[in-house]
Amino acid sequence: MGALPEDSEFFWEKEPTPVLDTLETPAQLKKFSSKELKLLAEEIRSEILYIASRAGRPFKASVGVVELTLAIHYVFNAPVDRILWDVGEQTYAHKILTGRRSLIHSLKQKNDTSVFTSRLESEYDAFGAGHGSNSVSAGLGMAVARDLKGKKERIVTVISNWSTMAGQVYEGMSNAGYLDSNMVVILNDSRHSLHPNPDEGQKMTVSSLSSILSKIQSSKYFRRFREVAKGLTKRIGKGMYELAAKIDEYARGMLGPSGATLFEELGLYYIGPVDGNNIEDLICVLNEVASLDSTGPVLVHVITEEAIGNASGIDVEGQAVKQQVVHKTPGYISESSTAGLSRTYNDCFVEALAAEAETSTEIVAIHAGVGMDASLRFLQSKFPERFFDVGMAEQHAVTFAAGLSCGGFKPFCIIPSTFLQRAYDQVIQDVDLQRIPVRFAITDAGLVGSDGPVRCGAFDIAFMACLPNMIVMAPSDEDELVRMVATAAQINDRPVCFRFPRGAITLNTPLYSGVPLEIGKGRVLADGEDVALLGYGVMVQHCLKARALLAHLGVQVTVADARFCKPLDIELLRRLCVDHKFLITVEEGTVGGFGSHVAQFMALDGLLDGGIKWRPIVLPDSYIDGASPKEQLEMAGLTGHHIAATILNILGRARDALLLMR
Amino acid sequence: MGALPEDSEFFWEKEPTPVLDTLETPAQLKKFSSKELKLLAEEIRSEILYIASRAGRPFKASVGVVELTLAIHYVFNAPVDRILWDVGEQTYAHKILTGRRSLIHSLKQKNDTSVFTSRLESEYDAFGAGHGSNSVSAGLGMAVARDLKGKKERIVTVISNWSTMAGQVYEGMSNAGYLDSNMVVILNDSRHSLHPNPDEGQKMTVSSLSSILSKIQSSKYFRRFREVAKGLTKRIGKGMYELAAKIDEYARGMLGPSGATLFEELGLYYIGPVDGNNIEDLICVLNEVASLDSTGPVLVHVITEEAIGNASGIDVEGQAVKQQVVHKTPGYISESSTAGLSRTYNDCFVEALAAEAETSTEIVAIHAGVGMDASLRFLQSKFPERFFDVGMAEQHAVTFAAGLSCGGFKPFCIIPSTFLQRAYDQVIQDVDLQRIPVRFAITDAGLVGSDGPVRCGAFDIAFMACLPNMIVMAPSDEDELVRMVATAAQINDRPVCFRFPRGAITLNTPLYSGVPLEIGKGRVLADGEDVALLGYGVMVQHCLKARALLAHLGVQVTVADARFCKPLDIELLRRLCVDHKFLITVEEGTVGGFGSHVAQFMALDGLLDGGIKWRPIVLPDSYIDGASPKEQLEMAGLTGHHIAATILNILGRARDALLLMR
Repeated sequence: MGALPEDSEFFWEKEPTPVLDTLETPAQLKKFSSKELKLLAEEIRSEILYIASRAGRPFKASVGVVELTLAIHYVFNAPVDRILWDVGEQTYAHKILTGRRSLIHSLKQKNDTSVFTSRLESEYDAFGAGHGSNSVSAGLGMAVARDLKGKKERIVTVISNWSTMAGQVYEGMSNAGYLDSNMVVILNDSRHSLHPNPDEGQKMTVSSLSSILSKIQSSKYFRRFREVAKGLTKRIGKGMYELAAKIDEYARGMLGPSGATLFEELGLYYIGPVDGNNIEDLICVLNEVASLDSTGPVLVHVITEEAIGNASGIDVEGQAVKQQVVHKTPGYISESSTAGLSRTYNDCFVEALAAEAETSTEIVAIHAGVGMDASLRFLQSKFPERFFDVGMAEQHAVTFAAGLSCGGFKPFCIIPSTFLQRAYDQVIQDVDLQRIPVRFAITDAGLVGSDGPVRCGAFDIAFMACLPNMIVMAPSDEDELVRMVATAAQINDRPVCFRFPRGAITLNTPLYSGVPLEIGKGRVLADGEDVALLGYGVMVQHCLKARALLAHLGVQVTVADARFCKPLDIELLRRLCVDHKFLITVEEGTVGGFGSHVAQFMALDGLLDGGIKWRPIVLPDSYIDGASPKEQLEMAGLTGHHIAATILNILGRARDALLLMR
Repeated sequence: MGALPEDSEFFWEKEPTPVLDTLETPAQLKKFSSKELKLLAEEIRSEILYIASRAGRPFKASVGVVELTLAIHYVFNAPVDRILWDVGEQTYAHKILTGRRSLIHSLKQKNDTSVFTSRLESEYDAFGAGHGSNSVSAGLGMAVARDLKGKKERIVTVISNWSTMAGQVYEGMSNAGYLDSNMVVILNDSRHSLHPNPDEGQKMTVSSLSSILSKIQSSKYFRRFREVAKGLTKRIGKGMYELAAKIDEYARGMLGPSGATLFEELGLYYIGPVDGNNIEDLICVLNEVASLDSTGPVLVHVITEEAIGNASGIDVEGQAVKQQVVHKTPGYISESSTAGLSRTYNDCFVEALAAEAETSTEIVAIHAGVGMDASLRFLQSKFPERFFDVGMAEQHAVTFAAGLSCGGFKPFCIIPSTFLQRAYDQVIQDVDLQRIPVRFAITDAGLVGSDGPVRCGAFDIAFMACLPNMIVMAPSDEDELVRMVATAAQINDRPVCFRFPRGAITLNTPLYSGVPLEIGKGRVLADGEDVALLGYGVMVQHCLKARALLAHLGVQVTVADARFCKPLDIELLRRLCVDHKFLITVEEGTVGGFGSHVAQFMALDGLLDGGIKWRPIVLPDSYIDGASPKEQLEMAGLTGHHIAATILNILGRARDALLLMR
């Protein structure tokens, strides 16, 4: 389903950027003329397109927001004034303007600039934008802190129409309205939808609010406003404040209650909509907003057009959609399941789920998150009635799935590991505690390559396996994944989850509809007598690699695939303990997960009392920077080489271990 | 700060309930006359007051909602029609009407009816109401399931003005507006505020939306509506539908855009406000709503008065506020920190925090949750500028605290363990990943008595200790708690959390401003030579009890207080392993927590290789029913007797262990 042939990379020729080349800090912008700002906007846009084409990243959000970013930095004084972003993908222009132009050229490579904002990376990043929907809450905290300290800096948060799907934005806005501290919330309302439907060739929305925003955008009022504003802003310079006030008044009166009141009822003073690609309008309105004092929180509704300058043929997910691309050497594209060069775990999961859904009309799928990869869009088109994409609303997704289960369906709730954290309480209270059969397909488990720690799925084994009613499993390869989908479909008396990684499958064996597994039963893949390796999930593959390496060194290793973290296969565990001197558990997760559950059982069973010697291999206790998947595995110490070296060390062959790691 | 003297219980004389006594199922209601329904309402109200007085529970929410509950069961056909509640405290009338009248009389006692709703308890409980704000999501799932199956039952969810503070409600409503399935969302808008301020004698609101709702309630329009409606409903029976339509139309027109649009913009058809204590009005409106077909989701805004019938002198938290009470034998009141008979851990925490806040003006406190106990209200009154109560908005609370930290303050974020689950992703992304010093005071950790599994804080050790930058600690008693507050105040380069239990303190020693602890250092409390007990948190006290029991049986036990789960005191661990044959870790948490981190270290350090024999004692892998704290500890196997018996067993003295447990 990848749109690109194997081994490809695509980019544009880099255009000259004379204005941008002169810029060192955003403060210099204040001396720029209107004409220079417009030129600069074009240059930054072409720069972003060039970078994005090389990195295979979603970038539309950043293209649409170039003028807004320039206007914000023109009007406000970062880093004294604090600018908070809500979605990392919007921030490329901000990064280019704030001294990270060279860094951003190596986007998605090891140890380089994050694709998100980070306080550690730049003083211009007032807060980390990762999962989204957090900027109003963080900005309000800064605003209140400023007031308590009697300071005067301005706080500007930029949210997007994406993040208005997430409940935290409402919690934050409602509390902002109540506390009434001065802050500016800019709603970057981009016309593109998150889920372009390739079949219908039209936009889709997943929540009611986004429909409303669309209506505002397409209304004749807004179009008329753009024309009027164009006339007004021609006279900028004569009396900016008065003009801005007029624009403001006009916009507010024109829009009427239908768009403004939602925000006004939450306690924010609404201004808009403002044409977010007209830099003069933006500066005019933001100047006014910046000059206001003691008004409490203000919401500026800005409408941006992401298609501007983008005749270039890359869609929102970073996929090529036209043929203007040049194929080159492999990039990091392959690690993204959306632009995969080969079939991904996601693809296999979707195929398996589709096969189950063919035979059982009770299977429904719920997806939460921003954007869907091609395989999920395929699932949606195949079962439009039984596929629910709820957007950035993970809490709702989980409880909604529980409701569907109570209504007699078999829900599969598809959420990346890192985003499942946002619905942890719903998993506990609305699913596990009530023992409602919801099936969690945890995608993007473990390390996720260049997306780094923000999207890393490190914690799910620990936070799911401690839940009393949950069955917790992980497939060691795509065949096992297919069988786990079948297993989950069959379990109907309790919740179940299974995690699988981002990225390409390894076996490429033909898949068939899966035979369900026996609950709580692992399997031995290869026998040895010196050491037992018990892998969980795809780490089993690295255990097999370690076994092959050690065979050359005369060490005989048993490799077992645990399949289940909960319930554990205690017969298998006892057998491995009796037959071996050493047991090594291996997982792509933190302490508290699979190895911890194994240790708990072995301790209570007396297996650790001078019998087996146990060594747990887990993710290191640190956040692992973005890099290629291979580099990340090295950094985490989870390769076959690392596992083999660990075994050589405990066998007292430290020298061989060192040789192996060279 | 408890309002009652020791050893007290208060109750009313039980009034006769002739109408209620004839009722067996809610279906019988349909034959009741208007007059009988009113009588029944009064009887149920007096029944609830009687029960609540005995159980020391918050009950206002249930008192105000009696007519609404009757109207819902009169109009709809439960359990075929599905009724979902959002807040457990609203459901006593519902429980009395649905066959649980006798059960509810033993509210808060072991193995009896839950204070929440539960699918396991009754077919009339369509979904579990525990943490709140989940009913729209679950109801929407059921509505969509019904539509897919071509069925016709009605879905009714009752949310409260409390739960509109939580983001999930917006996620659910917005998706409901988009999916457009038929369902009825009733907003039970009670006049009482969540946070009555005893000092000012007036209501407080914590979010902007709740202010708006208050304005609607107090408006002259609403008062006029009540009069008009009164006139209209006198003619009920002549043409109910037409009248209802008129009332509806009138209400909608009258309210104008100021209250309705928030919900209409989320995609719900707004009806209201309706007088929620006028059963005729309610039946009239709900009958109309029930008869509507294909309208999509409808929001019925119902305003209830909780003071009705309550001249009885118990405030919303179940505390006596007047003198009409009769003192009796001890009840379960003592386990609630709000009505405590003695000083609680919460009290000590607040005193310690207040002492720190006196000396450092940078300390701020953020509280999330419903209602505050007396000690938090004290803190709020003492530092009104530096205390932020954000209501049921845990996600916002955590990120807001991070923002305050970025603004130069030292935030203490006060959240019960079970509710911290709702902000897990914010703890990870907005605090730990960015290494922002936020101090989490995790209250109600471990077992929580009669509130049972819904409010049990079982998982926090596991889900916090896996985070790379987090310092994780737990005090063994109140003196240690005071020191940990001082420690947390001092840590300024990373986040930190400490957990402490609900309920009364044990030492009752005088408290002083705490001396900070050395990070990652535990302590040995008592020396022995046979076995080492390493306790985490208040379990240390039970370890000391076990030691005393075993001393009589000739077993010498070392007791150590770990203080830190992260970083572990590895010197202490090595010493304990060298000096003893057995090491027992004890914690009031699940697998994956303290014991697992200890095991991980011991395994990697080689300490488990035929040296120490390790036994972990943790919470059982099940949800523990509500009971008294003492009973729950017994059920969990975490008493001093259990710990001592475990030691006798591993020493081969099974017979002594049995004798001990008799």
